[in-house]
This record gives sequence, structure tokens and C-alpha cells, in this order.
Amino acid sequence: MKQIAYGMVGGGPGAFIGDVHRKAIRMDGLAVLKAGSFSRDAAKSKAHGKTLGVSEDRLYDDYREMARKEGSREDGIKFVVVVTPNSTHFEVCKAFLEQGIHVVCDKPLTWKIEESEELQRLAEKKNLLFAVTYTYTGYPAVKQMRKMVRDGLLGKIRFVNAEYPQDWLANPVDESSPIAPWRMDPEVSGISNCLGDIGSHIENLVSTVTGLKIKRVCARLDSLVEGRTLDDNATVLVEYEGGAKGMYWSSQVAFGYDNALRIRVFGEKGGLEWAQEDPDHFIFTPSDAPKQVFSRGRDPFAEEAQRYSRIPSGHPEGVYEAFANIYLPFVTALAKHLRGEKLEASDLDFPSVDQGLDGVRFINRCVQSSKQGALWVEM
Amino acid sequence: MKQIAYGMVGGGPGAFIGDVHRKAIRMDGLAVLKAGSFSRDAAKSKAHGKTLGVSEDRLYDDYREMARKEGSREDGIKFVVVVTPNSTHFEVCKAFLEQGIHVVCDKPLTWKIEESEELQRLAEKKNLLFAVTYTYTGYPAVKQMRKMVRDGLLGKIRFVNAEYPQDWLANPVDESSPIAPWRMDPEVSGISNCLGDIGSHIENLVSTVTGLKIKRVCARLDSLVEGRTLDDNATVLVEYEGGAKGMYWSSQVAFGYDNALRIRVFGEKGGLEWAQEDPDHFIFTPSDAPKQVFSRGRDPFAEEAQRYSRIPSGHPEGVYEAFANIYLPFVTALAKHLRGEKLEASDLDFPSVDQGLDGVRFINRCVQSSKQGALWVEM
Amino acid sequence: MKQIAYGMVGGGPGAFIGDVHRKAIRMDGLAVLKAGSFSRDAAKSKAHGKTLGVSEDRLYDDYREMARKEGSREDGIKFVVVVTPNSTHFEVCKAFLEQGIHVVCDKPLTWKIEESEELQRLAEKKNLLFAVTYTYTGYPAVKQMRKMVRDGLLGKIRFVNAEYPQDWLANPVDESSPIAPWRMDPEVSGISNCLGDIGSHIENLVSTVTGLKIKRVCARLDSLVEGRTLDDNATVLVEYEGGAKGMYWSSQVAFGYDNALRIRVFGEKGGLEWAQEDPDHFIFTPSDAPKQVFSRGRDPFAEEAQRYSRIPSGHPEGVYEAFANIYLPFVTALAKHLRGEKLEASDLDFPSVDQGLDGVRFINRCVQSSKQGALWVEM
Amino acid sequence: MKQIAYGMVGGGPGAFIGDVHRKAIRMDGLAVLKAGSFSRDAAKSKAHGKTLGVSEDRLYDDYREMARKEGSREDGIKFVVVVTPNSTHFEVCKAFLEQGIHVVCDKPLTWKIEESEELQRLAEKKNLLFAVTYTYTGYPAVKQMRKMVRDGLLGKIRFVNAEYPQDWLANPVDESSPIAPWRMDPEVSGISNCLGDIGSHIENLVSTVTGLKIKRVCARLDSLVEGRTLDDNATVLVEYEGGAKGMYWSSQVAFGYDNALRIRVFGEKGGLEWAQEDPDHFIFTPSDAPKQVFSRGRDPFAEEAQRYSRIPSGHPEGVYEAFANIYLPFVTALAKHLRGEKLEASDLDFPSVDQGLDGVRFINRCVQSSKQGALWVEM
Repeated sequence: MKQIAYGMVGGGPGAFIGDVHRKAIRMDGLAVLKAGSFSRDAAKSKAHGKTLGVSEDRLYDDYREMARKEGSREDGIKFVVVVTPNSTHFEVCKAFLEQGIHVVCDKPLTWKIEESEELQRLAEKKNLLFAVTYTYTGYPAVKQMRKMVRDGLLGKIRFVNAEYPQDWLANPVDESSPIAPWRMDPEVSGISNCLGDIGSHIENLVSTVTGLKIKRVCARLDSLVEGRTLDDNATVLVEYEGGAKGMYWSSQVAFGYDNALRIRVFGEKGGLEWAQEDPDHFIFTPSDAPKQVFSRGRDPFAEEAQRYSRIPSGHPEGVYEAFANIYLPFVTALAKHLRGEKLEASDLDFPSVDQGLDGVRFINRCVQSSKQGALWVEM
Repeated sequence: MKQIAYGMVGGGPGAFIGDVHRKAIRMDGLAVLKAGSFSRDAAKSKAHGKTLGVSEDRLYDDYREMARKEGSREDGIKFVVVVTPNSTHFEVCKAFLEQGIHVVCDKPLTWKIEESEELQRLAEKKNLLFAVTYTYTGYPAVKQMRKMVRDGLLGKIRFVNAEYPQDWLANPVDESSPIAPWRMDPEVSGISNCLGDIGSHIENLVSTVTGLKIKRVCARLDSLVEGRTLDDNATVLVEYEGGAKGMYWSSQVAFGYDNALRIRVFGEKGGLEWAQEDPDHFIFTPSDAPKQVFSRGRDPFAEEAQRYSRIPSGHPEGVYEAFANIYLPFVTALAKHLRGEKLEASDLDFPSVDQGLDGVRFINRCVQSSKQGALWVEM
Repeated sequence: MKQIAYGMVGGGPGAFIGDVHRKAIRMDGLAVLKAGSFSRDAAKSKAHGKTLGVSEDRLYDDYREMARKEGSREDGIKFVVVVTPNSTHFEVCKAFLEQGIHVVCDKPLTWKIEESEELQRLAEKKNLLFAVTYTYTGYPAVKQMRKMVRDGLLGKIRFVNAEYPQDWLANPVDESSPIAPWRMDPEVSGISNCLGDIGSHIENLVSTVTGLKIKRVCARLDSLVEGRTLDDNATVLVEYEGGAKGMYWSSQVAFGYDNALRIRVFGEKGGLEWAQEDPDHFIFTPSDAPKQVFSRGRDPFAEEAQRYSRIPSGHPEGVYEAFANIYLPFVTALAKHLRGEKLEASDLDFPSVDQGLDGVRFINRCVQSSKQGALWVEM
Repeated sequence: MKQIAYGMVGGGPGAFIGDVHRKAIRMDGLAVLKAGSFSRDAAKSKAHGKTLGVSEDRLYDDYREMARKEGSREDGIKFVVVVTPNSTHFEVCKAFLEQGIHVVCDKPLTWKIEESEELQRLAEKKNLLFAVTYTYTGYPAVKQMRKMVRDGLLGKIRFVNAEYPQDWLANPVDESSPIAPWRMDPEVSGISNCLGDIGSHIENLVSTVTGLKIKRVCARLDSLVEGRTLDDNATVLVEYEGGAKGMYWSSQVAFGYDNALRIRVFGEKGGLEWAQEDPDHFIFTPSDAPKQVFSRGRDPFAEEAQRYSRIPSGHPEGVYEAFANIYLPFVTALAKHLRGEKLEASDLDFPSVDQGLDGVRFINRCVQSSKQGALWVEM
């Protein structure tokens, strides 16, 4: 398979997540970086692009120029990776969609529901692929759990308990720190910090594994460290369509927790449990047998999960591989699309703009509930 | 120290919890069973009492007679253990208090707030000791965590996440099962099943470890298994006086969980975590150092915690020892009281009628919140 | 059932293990302490006996007098618990056996093989019950694993890896400490410290679970803390009759380990794993299915294991209950024996003098191997 | 930095480990595949090379031709990755060294000690870099533990217990399986299967973390599955120079274990413990404080360890990153070397031909010991 050319907006020097995307893409060697606008500072962007091996004429001062020029080159990039601050996702994604360029964008997709809806419409209208990098659903174990729920091994779902505690904002952050505005300034961070950043991963993970649709939420966003205007902790009671119930907790002040996304799903016939920090294993408890520890590679995973595994059991696969598992189906589907073949539902095995929109809606409804004093709000 | 005579109401043949109490009391040998009314069936009660070595003249047909007669014997029992169905606690406890007999009662203390208040008043008026067997606060690790919070090692508490999942009611229970009415019939089980039974342990554990007072709750009691009238799952958002927040979950339908009471407390300076199924250890994460695993006996526990440890580190102490740790301070304090000495606050190191009342109030307010559609209710 | 009278030799003030025995016996209330010689210091012994409620005329200055007098009383003790220093076990046990009194003795039974053989012969000749308190085989999970191996669920055993690390002697011990001679003086501690004390538990646990007989050993006993004459760490390569192989490690200098006895057994059809510090669970991995976590009470245990469980799943049972599980079958069998009934093999479900002798032989052969420079020695 | 050209011998279609090397190299983008001889079947090799983007004129029928031609091209590869069967490592590595091409080779380096010695001499004489891919020492946590030992945090090392159980050969392997000869045929697998394959990782990990040199070994290599000529399980008693002792176990028949390399090190002042399947964490127990769980990224790692971390704490890094951490210092050092700069010891932070030789010596001495009936053999 010929490598597909891609570009990146954001991900300049010191921008951590852009580098993660590039490493994850390189791992499978299916796509190659050919253009970029890595920083709003044109000189920085250029210097950075050179270290990445991008030819000078495809290093752009701004993303609009990049979208326009790449959109009109015959050998132009086929997709763009958007890793700019959340508040700018909308305009950047829109610019590339309008030029017929496929998009991969970080989450949360946008802050406003209408903006995500517009991106959704635009992608559909232009027949463009659009992935949102909810990383954690890339793990083979998550895909296997999804399959087991779909196959009815849990029966009807009754209850979900999911959480995402971290502790990196548990100590007050120096106001002069470069991280401060990203996390504490509503102008930059949008309507929510903790729930928007990591709570949306909970929502996406639960939705992916269980297929449940949220009907209404009762949310409380807390600012537990003094002097903060945005939330650093959030608790949400959830009611799903069909009667199942749920409970979510995200926190950035939970001393002892690094990045502890965890899901527990309980149905009529059994329970499932998975923790992101030990991604190769999950626990399945049938209603009538001992607890079982499934290990990726050792125990039978369905083909739709196992294909995302790159190495035998007991050899840990981590976040880079999970990230690569968003790009693998995206680039594969894109190649098929570019060859003019029709895409099946199974080809689109990556978080899409639809899931991006779900996340934005979830965040907005939770913020609304919290502002009303943690009252129930319909989705 | 001379053994103190005690009696028991309830705990007849097949009654599991009565036997646990007796074994726990026997462990330290400080008290000895001398009287009982073990069953409402007089013949059964008598037969059972004999196997327990109680002399025939102190095996009573009913608890009122027992209270009266024991209360007037010179060598009468000094305290009674009440292990009858929850709905009868009030009348039984009252009968013994009125005869000047000290009381140990299972939790929840009563269903109605007023009844618990009356017991509290009566005990105070008669100057009688009254313990409520919230077993899990008997563990040395719990007492050590309480001490660490009091000593300020966590700073001001910000958030508490506590849960108590079980799975023994996850499958529908045969209606003809003897357990069915206990759990599913409001006449017997009172106003709540799951929250009343195990949710109250959460409330007591959090209160014991943190000292926080609940200001208001938003609770949702679910009946997730079809055909149930009472709750088998409950989620509660909590707000404490002083601004801390909390989240509780209790469940009896959580496949994979036996008896998994667990508490996580986060403060300004660190976090604490403990799980009842591994009671000898807890985790303390200071704000600026690696996570620490404390082991009872290996690592320094304060005297007020260590005194409840009976064996060196690595030799598991379990639920029987936790139960014995309710009785140890109760009987020791009672002996001091009977000798006419004044009791210090530190002597009263067992869950009291006050904590019993707190639990009853918590259950009632949660039920009320849930009936209103999970709206906030002041305590 | 009428309580059986027992006596104790050793277990005086400050003697930790004697108190553990007494608490464990009290738990089930099947036997009652009626006589004792608790210390070589007669005054101490008397004072201690009184606090335990033993009547003064049955508090003896020395064990020989006690054996003689109790042996001739009509209401004399039916069995004696021997918790004296290891080097005195032989003479004490012998004195009681000769008086027709049944015996429970701590491990290791003796230091010399011939002494254990003599006790074995004497018990057999006099038709007396003789238990050796290898505590850890009392856990229900151990009995369940034993059953699973016997039932062939593992197929033929291939390999065993068992270990028992502790760290309480990892720091040099002050020579003036009361513990020093017990552990470091060959006059008191006999031929081995670490292997004799805890290595013998490994041998007994492996033998109990697997039924394997040791054919030969290659052992290395190390004194890793400077200035010690006796071992504080030991590694043993084992070959069993029938071709299976094994590897044992015991240590008292393993920082981070409290009392971490652990066994892993691998057969043709699966593997088993259990750790004493989490005694209610074990892991079974069949050759063709995911790893299974068995939980006492939740998952089906055979009756011969489940009968030793006193409380539902998730309510931890610990070392006291394990100890009580040595006494429960011993006292029950003794009662049957005293009633003149014939004992079945299944009645004798406690570690016997035969297993005591196996342990002594194991220790002696390992010491011999080590002295020869870790060469192979036949059992 | 300009990408360095590399070639590969082995790693053809279906050859798992070659793909792992390529992905790991791609991750950091420091080197690029420019030549190869991927299979002994020339057609297969060519076809495979094309899918990897290697230009046709640099796809070679055999490795000798490749070494010769690449060695004489101005833009020839700077290093070769040797991932052929172990028995061919010697001749392949030698061919490239003779052409002045730097080498990265899989472990075990060779079967014969003399062959490894010759490669060591040749690399030294020609001043060429030579890495041996002991993957697991690439983890940041391993490097941090090495640093802590060097800094004296454990004091003098007393004892090491290391193990590497797997279960993938626990069931008899079909003789027609393609894997069969690799693992069971001495012609292909050399003098040892289990010890040679995974036991050598134990030896290298212990040596890396502790710096200890092995003085002598007592090894037993077992063929526990019927019909095997080579070992599938091995136990080794180790004595180090300076008096420390050790115990190693490797197995491929340990049901329940995937790839469970684990090390425990005990010194005068504390203990360390790490398990490959949870590579981001390790446990440090100081002699006088609670057990501490170190988390990569959360807790302070020295710069020499932290520089190998690519993502914040709680985002698992796995085997691919560990592999990349062999290549990162190798390629960086090579670039420096190619620029004509002098390399410092700290530049050579990868397992070298010296460590490769140590491993080969260890394997040979263990085989020799086992053949003599598990007697002690000097290194």
C-alpha cells in the first residue's frame, strides 16, 4: 500500500500531543507527514517543520493558506490532523473540509453544539471521512468488550459505573505556568475543564462498549482547588434510554491517580470491568461462574478486536498503539475511499464526527445541569 | 478481668449474624452468654440456647419477659445483643434500656428517625452504653486512617468517593426463598433494601474516617432486577458541611463483587484509599511523594489503631476480628462504667446510638430524595 | 456438644502464639482451657493462669507434674496444646502421650528425626490423636485446591514454585533483644532458623495441596545479615517422586514482604496459585480458558472445603479462622473418639504427627545438603 | 537530525520479530530502512521488501552480497538489524562487521561462547557499535531501578529472585507446526530452548539492575512436556561475586502466565520489585518506611531514566516503546560517532556485545551444570 500524505495543524515545538499523533501514525507506516502549520508563530512553525522532514514549500504561515494550497495541489495532503487548542477546532476543521480534505481532530470536537453539527453536516455533504481521537477506544480489549456486549453475553445492561480520576491539578497551579490558561481560563478552555477534557472520554468509552444512549443527566461540576473558575472534578448521574442507569466521575484532584479511566458494566447475565492503566486485560464475571481475567493474545478475542493487536500476550501494548488503532482503520478506510471503493460500516471502525457531536452535547448538558444546581436535564 | 454476662435477642438456629456476634465476643473472652430469647418460636429458642450452654431458667419465651427478669436479677445480664429483624430493633432495644440494661444493636438501628431519637434520649437519660454494630469501622486500618485525617495529613477534605457493590441479589430470587421477604417485602425490609442494608455502612465509614457531616443529598434508588419493589442499587451525590463533595454507590446486582466496600478520600495534601476485602492494608498518597502501601503491623500505626491488632503483619485479620473490635472497647468501657469509673471520650471507641441515628437519617433523606425524582434534600 | 477440657504448656505472659491458640479455640467454643503450665517461672505461670480463668489447683509448676496429675484426674484434660520453644517439644509431647493425653504441638515438631519418629510411634501405640499446627493448610481455599488436584483438574503435576518471604529479620537484631536467642542461637533455635521456621510451612503446604512426595533436595541455607550463625534465607531445588520438579524459597530478609507464603502449581491441564495474605481467593488457569479467580463463598467449593468457611464471600477470614480450622476437625474427631466411635480418614482432616515428621525430615535433609555445599541429598 | 539508513537481515513475511523492530525504529523516526535480505527465499524477500518501500536494487538475495554491496556504496546502510534464527547470528553479524557496518542483533547472540568472543573482538578492532536487543532493559522503570541501586539506596545487595514464566508451550505442540523445529529441534534451537530464549533475559535484567557478576551456577533444565528433547523449564541457583545469592526460574509451561518477567532485589537497606507486564511501575521498600509504588512520570525519575519516557504518567508505555529505547540511544550514539565525535560511557546506554557474550556464557554454563546433574559450575 502506498503511503498517504497528511498534514498537521498545531503540534509545534513543545506541543506534546502533536508528537504523539505523529509517532502513532509512523508506527504502521501507512501515512507520511507532507505539510504543516505547526504554530501561530510562523518562524517557529517553519523551524519545527524542517526537523520533521517537511519540505519548505509546504510549511505554511497559517492554516487557511495551507487548506487552500494543499486542496489545490495534485499531490496535496489527503487528510489533516487538527491538534490546536479546543476553541479553534471548529474553524480549522471547517477550512479543510471546505477544501475537500479529510479530517482527524482531537476531542472535544468543539465547545458549541451547533459548531459540531455544522462540521457533521459539512463532512456528510462533501462525503469526507472525519475521525475524532478518542484514544482509549482504540485498545483491543475495549473492542472485545464491545463485541461481547453486542453478542449478548451480558444480557440487557442495568448499570454502568465509569470514572476517570487524575491528580495532576490537585496542587494549585502557578498562575505564571504555561499550563494555567489552558486549564483555568474559560476564554481558552471553554465551558469546562475537567469534564470537557476527560469526562468526555468516559462518555465515549461507555457509549462505545455498551451502545447505550443517554436520555438525561444530573451533573455537578466542582472547583475544588481554591481560586479556580473552571471545574476540576465532576460527578454525573446518568439515565439511559431503555431504563439503564449510570454514574460517572472525573477528577483532576484525586491524589494517587495518574490517568485512571475505568469502566464497569453490569447486565442481567454478567459484568465487565476494564482499566486503562492495565489495557491488555479485562475482567468478565458471568452470572454463574468464577470471575475470568481475559488477556489480550492469550484468550480468544474476536477478529474485530484481535486485528488491532500487534504483539503476543504479555507484551504490553500502550497508549501509542491505542492511538495507532484510531489511525489504522481511518487511513485504511481512506485508502479504500480514494480507490473509489464503497466503504462498509465495518470499515468505519474509528470514532467519528457523530461521536464527537455526542461528546459535545454531553458536556453542554452537564454544564447546564450543574449551573441549575445539579438538576436533571434532558439530552 | 471478670467476664461480663450478656444476653441475646434473635440469633436463633440458622440465623447467621447471631453466630457471628457470639464468635466475635468469645474471641477475647471478656463476656459470656448467660441469657437469651433466640427465636419467636419458644421451643426453637430453648433448644438453641441449650446448645449454646445457657442454663434453662434464663432461656426466655419472649424478649419482654427476658428484659424484665434479667433486669431484676442480681446476676442479670449487663448488656443485651439485639440481632432481630430491623423492624423490631426499636421495641426490643427500648425494653432493655428501660430495665437499665446496656445495648448492642445491629444496623440500621431503626427505620423511623423518631424511633432512633427516642432510643438516643432513653440511653442518655438512663446513662446506658449503646453500640450499633457498624462492623467495618472496627478494622485497625480504618482507625489509623481516621487518625491520619484528624492529624491533618490530608489537609482539608475535598472529595470522597465510596462504594459498596455486591452481587448476591443480581439474579432474580425465587419468591419462595426464605430470603425473599427479608429483602423484597417492604413490610419486613422497611423503606429500603440495598441502601438501608449496605449504603448505611458507606455513610458510617465515611463519617468515621473523615468526620464530615452531610448537609444534603441527591439520591436515586433503583430496582434493577425486574419485579422488585425495593431498591437493589443506589447512587447518591453528597454535599458536606464546609463545602466538600462526595459520591456514594451501593449495589447488590454488581456481578463480580462479593462485599466490596471501598473508600477513597481526597484532601488538599493527599489521598487515602481502603478496601474492606483487603482490610489490613491501605494506600496513602501524599501530594509530593510516591504512593505508599501501609500494612497493619509492618508500618507504624498510632496506638489508638494498633491496639486493635491481634497478630503480626501479613497474618490476615478479617471480619470476625473487626466485629470483636466493636465489642472490645464496648465491654471494656462497660466494665469501667460498672466499676463506677468515669468514661473518657477515648473509652467510647465504638459506633454509638448517635451514629445509629445519623445512619437512619441518611437512609430516610435518600429515600425522600429518590421519591422526588432524585432532587436535593437537606439533612 | 459438651466442651472438651484442654491444657496448655507454654503460652505465658508475652508469649504471642499461645494467645493465638487460645483465641482460635475459643472461636468455636468446642474446648475450654482447664489446666496449664504457662511459664518455667512458676509464679508467672500461676498469675497468668488466673487471668485466663484456670482454677488454681490446675496451675502447675512444671509440665511433668501437669501431665501426671491431669492424666490421673477423672475430669482431667483430654488434650494438651504444646507451645514451648521448639527444642523442648519432644520431651513435653512425650510426657503427655505417656499419660494417655492427646496432643496438639507447634511446628517444627522436633529438630531430630528420631525424636519425631518416637512421638509418631508412641501416639500410634497409645492410639492417641496428634496434630501439628501447620496453620496455613486450614484455609478453605487450600482445602479446595487440594480437592481440585485430587480430582485431576490439573492432570499430572509438572512443577511447583513455592515461597515464603518475610522481612522482619532484614535489619540486624540487637543482641540484647529477647528475640535474639530464639532466632540466632543454635542452642535455642536448633539446626535452622529460617528454613526450620517458615520453610517447613512451604513443605507442608505443597505436600497438602499436591500430594507429592519429595525424593531429593539441593538446598542452600544463607546467613545474609552479617554476624548470624543461623540461616535467614534459603533456596531449595526439589525433585519429587514420579518426576515432578520444584523450587522453594524462604526468607526473613526480603524487604517489602510481611508473611507472604505463596504457592504455584503447574500440571498438564492447568495451573493453581494462592497467596496466604489474600487467603479467600485463588487462581485457577485451565489449559484452554481464561484465568479464573475463585472466591470463597461466591464460587462453588466442595463440601470438604466449604465446611471450614464461617461467613459469606467478601467477608475476609484470616489467620485466626485458619487456626480454628486446625482445631475444629481435631476436637470434633477427638469427641468422636472419646465417644468410642471409629474415626474415618475424613475425620482426620488436620496435619498429623506424620506430617510433622515429614517436615522434620525435610529440614534435616536440607541442612545436610547445604553443609555439603548445596549438593543433592536423598530424602 | 538526518535519518540514518539501515538494513535488515531476516524479518520476512510472517516473521514476527522483524516487524517489531521496524515499528520500534519508525516510532522515533531517527533511522530509515534502505536495504534488506528478508528471507532465504529470494522471491519472497524481494516481494516483502517492496511492501516496505525499499528500492529494488537494494533488495538482496543473500546477506553476504548485501554486506559487500552496502559496505561499498557511499550511501550504504550505516547499521544492520540481524533478526535471523539464532544459529545464524554469528555468520551474519560477522559479514557486516567485516564490511565496517554497525550491528544490532537479537539475543541470544550466538550459541557458542567462542563465536560471541570473536564478534566482540571484531567490533572492538573495527571500532563498530554493536547492540544486542535485550528489550526489557529499555523500560524507563528498569533504568530508574538501576540508578537507585547504583546510588546505594539498597545498600549492598544480598539476594535476587528473578523469574520469567510463560505458558505458550504448556500444551504439546503439533510436530507439523511451523514453530515446532524452532523450539524443539536442537539443530535449529541450539543447546537450549527455554533458558536460551527467556532465561537469558533474566540474566541480563538482573545484571543491568544490580551490576552483579555471576560467579557460579547450579542449574536444572527440565523437559516437562513429554517427548521434548530441549528444556521448557529451568531453575538456577546463582552465586555472585562478593557473596550475594540468587535464584532464577524460567518456564514455558506455567499455565496462567503470559510473559511474566519479574525481578525482586533485596539489599541491606531496602528492596525493589518490578514486573514486565506492568512496566510503568515498580515497588521500592525502604528498610524503615512503607512500601512505595513508583509510577513513571508521576514520581521523580532521574534524568537518565526519564529521558526514555515519551508520554505522561498513567498513559501506558509498552514493549514497542521499550524496543524503541534500545534503538534511541544506539542510533543517537551512532550519529555522534558518524559525526566523528568521541562517545562517552553514558552514550552507550544500550545492551552491547559484552552483555551478549555474558548471556551466551550464562546459557552455556547452565547447560553444562544441568548435564552434570545440577552440580555447581564456575562461570
